[in-house]
Amino acid sequence: MTTLAKFLLLLTLLIMGAYVNHNAASRTEQHQQRQQRLAKLKASATAEDYAFMKKVLNASTEFTGAANSTPPTSLVVKDGEIIGEGSDRSAQLNDPSAHAELEAVKAACKYMGATTLKGSVLYTSSKPCPMCLALLYRVEVERIVYYMPADTTPTETANTSNRRIYEALKQDPAYRPIPELVLHPSDLEKLAGGDGRRTR
Amino acid sequence: MTTLAKFLLLLTLLIMGAYVNHNAASRTEQHQQRQQRLAKLKASATAEDYAFMKKVLNASTEFTGAANSTPPTSLVVKDGEIIGEGSDRSAQLNDPSAHAELEAVKAACKYMGATTLKGSVLYTSSKPCPMCLALLYRVEVERIVYYMPADTTPTETANTSNRRIYEALKQDPAYRPIPELVLHPSDLEKLAGGDGRRTR
Repeated sequence: MTTLAKFLLLLTLLIMGAYVNHNAASRTEQHQQRQQRLAKLKASATAEDYAFMKKVLNASTEFTGAANSTPPTSLVVKDGEIIGEGSDRSAQLNDPSAHAELEAVKAACKYMGATTLKGSVLYTSSKPCPMCLALLYRVEVERIVYYMPADTTPTETANTSNRRIYEALKQDPAYRPIPELVLHPSDLEKLAGGDGRRTR
Repeated sequence: MTTLAKFLLLLTLLIMGAYVNHNAASRTEQHQQRQQRLAKLKASATAEDYAFMKKVLNASTEFTGAANSTPPTSLVVKDGEIIGEGSDRSAQLNDPSAHAELEAVKAACKYMGATTLKGSVLYTSSKPCPMCLALLYRVEVERIVYYMPADTTPTETANTSNRRIYEALKQDPAYRPIPELVLHPSDLEKLAGGDGRRTR
């Protein structure tokens, strides 16, 4: 090999090394930024936040201990006033949508005579599921404050199920695990005999 | 430059060219695969699917025309039998969760005395929102069949709102647009004076 060839080979190796090193560095940086962001979020908790969170946890149990042994509870608070309260009634009612957050949002909307909750804060005794989170975005609450118990074993099944749902929602609709079949007007017209009127 | 150096330079250029070309080719291929997947999904529609979709659309309006002028409607069907039916009542009840899909799932779960709907199909007159989709994953329906009108102008606002929610749900919780504040037992213990008991 000539000197130039050796030089080019060395340069390639150096660039590859720098690339790998840069990737590792930016991952560390990302992790640090994330920790800082979480710390900043936690530092934003006000005395009012703690007071309402205690209220939420007292509604279900002593907050030191098994916060999951009793139904999850949620509060919607606006300008320091509780405008909605809800407890999980899914097992009781055979209603898979009757989560504490959804019940609290419903109660608050009914109380306010509105379908948005701008400027409100949602306090809840466990991590909201994707369904509830989607609703909280729809009604445009200002903040979400939730409790994470020390022992998360009882909620592990829920977390696995939630992760599966988040993964599905992230995907292109064409490839989601539950097939989504889209019918257009032309499909129904064809079936009806081509004139676009229903035949029934 | 030596012959070897020229050769190495040419090789680098060739590899870069091949890479760009490969990327473009795989994008085209991905698009084709997606179209094929959508066509396959549509081809899987049975006569029963069309019949139930007509029923859904008749419940709101003539299916040729403004399917969005009347409340969206949904059906849950199992083994050819309707086990749940629902219409959007969100405006009527000031309940932002009262979407047709959610109402139909609630009705079906009540009817079945269960919180899962395995083996069921959900028919609905418009594209399910992220909240409803999350619930459909939770109750584990087998398929989702929905109608896409020719004129999607009336649903554009809903679509924009849904896209915004999907984007938020995709994100790392630390960076979602609505701040999520997580309180741990240690945070509450500190506040209570260090003995882990509430002070109130």
